[in-house]
Amino acid sequence: MEPRLESFIKDRRSRVEQTLEVLLPEADALSPAPLGAALRYAVLGSGKRMRPILVLAGCEAVGGDPDGALAPAAAVECIHAYSLVHDDLPALDNDDLRRGQPTTHKAYDEATAVLVGDALQTLAFQAIADADTLPVPVRLAMTRRLAHAAGHAGMVGGQALDLAQEDREIGMEALQRIHRLKTGALLRTSVELGALAGTADTESVDRLGAYGRHIGLAFQITDDVLDVEGDTEALGKTAGADAEHHKATYPALLGLEESKRLARQEVDQALEWLTPFGEAAEPLRALARYIIDRDH
Amino acid sequence: MEPRLESFIKDRRSRVEQTLEVLLPEADALSPAPLGAALRYAVLGSGKRMRPILVLAGCEAVGGDPDGALAPAAAVECIHAYSLVHDDLPALDNDDLRRGQPTTHKAYDEATAVLVGDALQTLAFQAIADADTLPVPVRLAMTRRLAHAAGHAGMVGGQALDLAQEDREIGMEALQRIHRLKTGALLRTSVELGALAGTADTESVDRLGAYGRHIGLAFQITDDVLDVEGDTEALGKTAGADAEHHKATYPALLGLEESKRLARQEVDQALEWLTPFGEAAEPLRALARYIIDRDH
Repeated sequence: MEPRLESFIKDRRSRVEQTLEVLLPEADALSPAPLGAALRYAVLGSGKRMRPILVLAGCEAVGGDPDGALAPAAAVECIHAYSLVHDDLPALDNDDLRRGQPTTHKAYDEATAVLVGDALQTLAFQAIADADTLPVPVRLAMTRRLAHAAGHAGMVGGQALDLAQEDREIGMEALQRIHRLKTGALLRTSVELGALAGTADTESVDRLGAYGRHIGLAFQITDDVLDVEGDTEALGKTAGADAEHHKATYPALLGLEESKRLARQEVDQALEWLTPFGEAAEPLRALARYIIDRDH
Repeated sequence: MEPRLESFIKDRRSRVEQTLEVLLPEADALSPAPLGAALRYAVLGSGKRMRPILVLAGCEAVGGDPDGALAPAAAVECIHAYSLVHDDLPALDNDDLRRGQPTTHKAYDEATAVLVGDALQTLAFQAIADADTLPVPVRLAMTRRLAHAAGHAGMVGGQALDLAQEDREIGMEALQRIHRLKTGALLRTSVELGALAGTADTESVDRLGAYGRHIGLAFQITDDVLDVEGDTEALGKTAGADAEHHKATYPALLGLEESKRLARQEVDQALEWLTPFGEAAEPLRALARYIIDRDH
């Protein structure tokens, strides 16, 4: 990773984690129920914080104060974390390992994991609604975009499609639809929420949204590639799981080399959208390049 | 049921169901995934629509236009429906029957039921955010109250406590905490959202909130009583399930007669808060009385 990006990520990740620390209930808040502790377990720890960092970097690209973007940054991380907790459940992907740790239903139990995901989704909307330093119309616009990105026409719809098409032969169009919904919508919205936090004009929000759309696709292709090429230890999850589940992936459909070429092409297109933002968009540029160069 | 209340409920229920019809995605929207159809299955059909009717009645009590309350009414019903779908899962209450029909995970499968609940929660926040006829600050205030009522410090927290205390001896204080969170918070917030939709002043919102708090408790006590006294056919769910699961209930703790007396007392207190609203609060009064007189 580029040293400047490394220090950017380290600093912003730490601010996001402090925000999450405060946002989440105390571990014993619901005692004797383990919900408080399980919520903290599912969110705090070793996540990449890719989405919240995109929120902060999006805000900075339009010249906004990144502190104003911390609430929506925490919100997108809560949505992401909830989706992982539910996707890992036995009835869905049935994963035991996540970010190198036992998944929430393994560390606690299935009932708690269902409720953790539910409460995290609510907490995302609460974090934005309660962000008193942001203008009311900005908070409502964020809520609206986040809801559309997270629901049946976004992330959850993509997950449903992904499950429905497991073990089926699907083409590029179906694969892209899955990823546009399942991971693309939230990544794109993360950058847009950052621009909204920086009170950017509509053109800038749309430009950053287009950037987000391209890196979202690059991110997913790279995830698929890493599932083939990566190793379980670096990934913090079981490598080769996609092939084992006969999942439709870019490498399965296009081969490894063509997948990597496509990911590079998406990053190049993402970078083009950033031209008007000059130096302020440097973190977004470095993040785009890092997305395809990472090993986990 | 009082004839005037019956016609009020019939009319308002029909308006709520029309709103939900439009809000929910088409049955084939996520084809080949069954998500669209499963979402409609989980929400449309034979629900009592108690919470959305409270939203509409709350709006009318403060002299508001009930059409403006349809979006938050649909939102609280989505939250309620999602909680039922998730609570019925095998890992939680493991119920096969709901509203006289197979539960969502029985009609579809567990993975779909998890995603249906997730998408319904998102849809609740989306419905309010998209309600363009309501002022922006009203929509944000609704989002905020709904998030606090639905999350770890409200409904989900109550469900976690309820599960944690199954098969344990608990006292009145613990039981009331569970119900205040699990069912009380959303019922109370339903009436408050109605008042907000009618752009009521803070005192009126608080008064209707107090009404909602008392009927919430009356509602829960009556639910517990019906689980002992009701029959499976009228209830549309398995009668006697609480005792079978050794759940803490009012009848188990106080006996049937004392439970019924307590429910009547809560309704009386609820009615006192409505005094300043005169004739406009008549639907709320009739609803309060009906809550303890129903047979399902």
